Amino acid sequence: MRVDLNCDMGESFGAWTLGADAAMMAVITSANIACGWHAGDPLVMERTVRLARDHGVGVGAHPGYPDLLGFGRRSMALSPAEAEAYVLYQVAALAGIAQANGARLVHVKPHGQLYNDATTNTALAEAIARAVVRLDPELILVGLAGSLLVEAGRAVGLRVAEEAFADRVYEANGALRSRRLPDAMIHDPAQAADQVLRMVRNGEVVAHDGTRVTLRADTICMHGDGSTAPQIGAELRQRLEAVGVQITPLAALVN
Amino acid sequence: MRVDLNCDMGESFGAWTLGADAAMMAVITSANIACGWHAGDPLVMERTVRLARDHGVGVGAHPGYPDLLGFGRRSMALSPAEAEAYVLYQVAALAGIAQANGARLVHVKPHGQLYNDATTNTALAEAIARAVVRLDPELILVGLAGSLLVEAGRAVGLRVAEEAFADRVYEANGALRSRRLPDAMIHDPAQAADQVLRMVRNGEVVAHDGTRVTLRADTICMHGDGSTAPQIGAELRQRLEAVGVQITPLAALVN
Amino acid sequence: MRVDLNCDMGESFGAWTLGADAAMMAVITSANIACGWHAGDPLVMERTVRLARDHGVGVGAHPGYPDLLGFGRRSMALSPAEAEAYVLYQVAALAGIAQANGARLVHVKPHGQLYNDATTNTALAEAIARAVVRLDPELILVGLAGSLLVEAGRAVGLRVAEEAFADRVYEANGALRSRRLPDAMIHDPAQAADQVLRMVRNGEVVAHDGTRVTLRADTICMHGDGSTAPQIGAELRQRLEAVGVQITPLAALVN
Amino acid sequence: MRVDLNCDMGESFGAWTLGADAAMMAVITSANIACGWHAGDPLVMERTVRLARDHGVGVGAHPGYPDLLGFGRRSMALSPAEAEAYVLYQVAALAGIAQANGARLVHVKPHGQLYNDATTNTALAEAIARAVVRLDPELILVGLAGSLLVEAGRAVGLRVAEEAFADRVYEANGALRSRRLPDAMIHDPAQAADQVLRMVRNGEVVAHDGTRVTLRADTICMHGDGSTAPQIGAELRQRLEAVGVQITPLAALVN
Repeated sequence: MRVDLNCDMGESFGAWTLGADAAMMAVITSANIACGWHAGDPLVMERTVRLARDHGVGVGAHPGYPDLLGFGRRSMALSPAEAEAYVLYQVAALAGIAQANGARLVHVKPHGQLYNDATTNTALAEAIARAVVRLDPELILVGLAGSLLVEAGRAVGLRVAEEAFADRVYEANGALRSRRLPDAMIHDPAQAADQVLRMVRNGEVVAHDGTRVTLRADTICMHGDGSTAPQIGAELRQRLEAVGVQITPLAALVN
Repeated sequence: MRVDLNCDMGESFGAWTLGADAAMMAVITSANIACGWHAGDPLVMERTVRLARDHGVGVGAHPGYPDLLGFGRRSMALSPAEAEAYVLYQVAALAGIAQANGARLVHVKPHGQLYNDATTNTALAEAIARAVVRLDPELILVGLAGSLLVEAGRAVGLRVAEEAFADRVYEANGALRSRRLPDAMIHDPAQAADQVLRMVRNGEVVAHDGTRVTLRADTICMHGDGSTAPQIGAELRQRLEAVGVQITPLAALVN
Repeated sequence: MRVDLNCDMGESFGAWTLGADAAMMAVITSANIACGWHAGDPLVMERTVRLARDHGVGVGAHPGYPDLLGFGRRSMALSPAEAEAYVLYQVAALAGIAQANGARLVHVKPHGQLYNDATTNTALAEAIARAVVRLDPELILVGLAGSLLVEAGRAVGLRVAEEAFADRVYEANGALRSRRLPDAMIHDPAQAADQVLRMVRNGEVVAHDGTRVTLRADTICMHGDGSTAPQIGAELRQRLEAVGVQITPLAALVN
Repeated sequence: MRVDLNCDMGESFGAWTLGADAAMMAVITSANIACGWHAGDPLVMERTVRLARDHGVGVGAHPGYPDLLGFGRRSMALSPAEAEAYVLYQVAALAGIAQANGARLVHVKPHGQLYNDATTNTALAEAIARAVVRLDPELILVGLAGSLLVEAGRAVGLRVAEEAFADRVYEANGALRSRRLPDAMIHDPAQAADQVLRMVRNGEVVAHDGTRVTLRADTICMHGDGSTAPQIGAELRQRLEAVGVQITPLAALVN
């Protein structure tokens, strides 16, 4: 039983600070680093890359929609060619910053609404996968478990990592329950840990309506905002290790 | 007698078009491609990289100040750390787009006021040089002939190319005469060609006040805007070749 | 028989130029001036306001999605509160620039995909109408003839102007035929003039499938880009006047 | 003895939060609200305007350089025409948002490096003053006490308010000691209150080198960031009131 733990990172911008990056680095094995379009700037990106490198955490790119004002959380009707070029640009920028700091880009995980839209929009999922494989076929593409993005990654020959969420409620079709609904989030760390254990051990999640949904979880997303995020993350990690789950970086996990 | 001919390229943005990129590619040996901060966007960058690749023109990055509204032509008081990170980000993005298109980034030439400020601002020049060498020590840094930028590039071990201008008037100290002055530009193609020939053959330029200024010209900047730019460029190239100057890509020229 | 002629204006940005604003001002009675979010910048806005003022052309605001890179032509899933605030900001900026130049803001017409989305999205249409009426209840809201935007404007007590297109093909439901389809545009000026005459005289348009669609046209949109736009505009205006249609500014037309 | 207390407000942006706006509103009489170019967005602006209105605090515009990435803290070499248009745009946007919320714009105070540059750059100071007076000659322009900005405001016929700082150390020429120096700030609230009392009562400040500098303080700037800012602000206000200084809104103070 092995699983990677990932967290969105580097989401500060200029004078504005967000997230507990330094504290979360001690807990995770993969960092998804914002690339300047929905959050992050070159100084933040470089600082976060170094933090990941120094903690032995895998460096990943976290490209988003070109929407700083909306933090990449609003759908934008990009053409596939636009989406492909925008992802390529962002991932390339982070890959170069990693390279300049003696690190290596390991994975790519789209951010926010780009991630969500790519679970169900075939053309968008394919555009993202093309951008990644064209830049570097060794990169690992991270997408929602069972989603079109994961399929699109496999179709172009990329290694993929299927992602699941510790603190999000699932629907019977494997989608995440919308954050707009009041019961979309799991706030109890113990309950979150139980959900993850079931994912890793049994390959399934119990959806909102009680349905058991089959799901492969290569990597679990932890959240780095919220004042107690590092504590919750550490607790989850300990519980997983306590039952024999090996917390393993993506590069050693997927093939 | 050998010289490289370069041109700023890829300066369109979204719905806005600028420059005669396709026509200029037939004339030059090096393309300085905007990286999205003062001009250019990922689609424009990719289109321009492909155009250069298909013409056998050397692909270069043309990073600028973060000032789309001012086209990178206004000084910004960046800290050296900011300048270094911003240049690294932009160059990395273009390098990745080149890589994804089977091309290789050859050189970096700062744009507009970033280029100008780096001729005389040591800390800025060093920041730019550091960004370039940290990303890839094989890159060639292009700067104004005799400027601090060229010195800073050499100091970190980069190959450098000293640049001269066909159509700009020089001051006695080797600086370019300010564009705000009415007689800063040479409009006569024949006169521009004469200036370039003297640079390449004699290693000097006659400044505005008649002073002969020693100057090493590895590469000549041609301009791609203006409705007759491609014709002027072609004429200049022909005149250079007619007197035995070999138009040679940067990668074959500097070492 | 009276109709207003409007044109989108002020769509240059920084170093980039778009449209034949000065030439179009001679043809139209209402200018929709971009407000800096999809196009336009404060200098362009001020220059365009002065041009309109000097030609006796009605000054209008042309707010768009926050998407300079996409020229406001891509849907963005804004919340109604976001849309309302963004429209208020943009219209207020232009109203102030008009005021500082001795002009008065007359109308508001959303741009591009914001305009399109507001034809069918009730919450968005209402948000736009609220922004306008809250800023100044004397403003005229321009929307696609028969659309939800026009209804939303009336519902909040605004004067509205229903807009029709000279050179766009219509669908049987009164929508514009998508530009993605090859036959979405009318390229023949005579045919465009015929369509407008039928709109103004008969209050109808013949849709793509031959259906006669009832339509009230207070204002006709002319396009200012394309090298022959001013000529086409002038021709259309002459044909309308020749048959007795009075070209009348919005402020004198709607009540 | 009367003085206004002002604070920079509305400096959040999208997903990023900055400042203790709600708590500071209880302490101050004038709010300088960011206009979206260095900080702030339309939703933040509207929320902050309402907060000021509901607290009876004067609504002011706080325009800055077009540099979100640098929070308006880096000099940009704008032309006077650019500066004038950019200030006009930002102030107009905020004025309209105020108007739409039943409030009235009272004053304008440039932000950050635009404020600093305007203390010594005549052309810039005049450009700012022109933008303000052209939009609305009833507005009050706030600038550093004794600076060129204040002079430029008076020269165009604006009412001006001279600003002093409770927690900044002064130089003998009346300038603020650079924040880059370690002893630029006063951290002791009692010492800050003493400085303000001397300004208000005696019309002077003791500079870093002991020189007594004559200075007129219509308004005192308080800072809203830092976790204890509201407490420090409240303490300062109490001390001022305790010795008989009337805390008075700008509109009632300057003429």
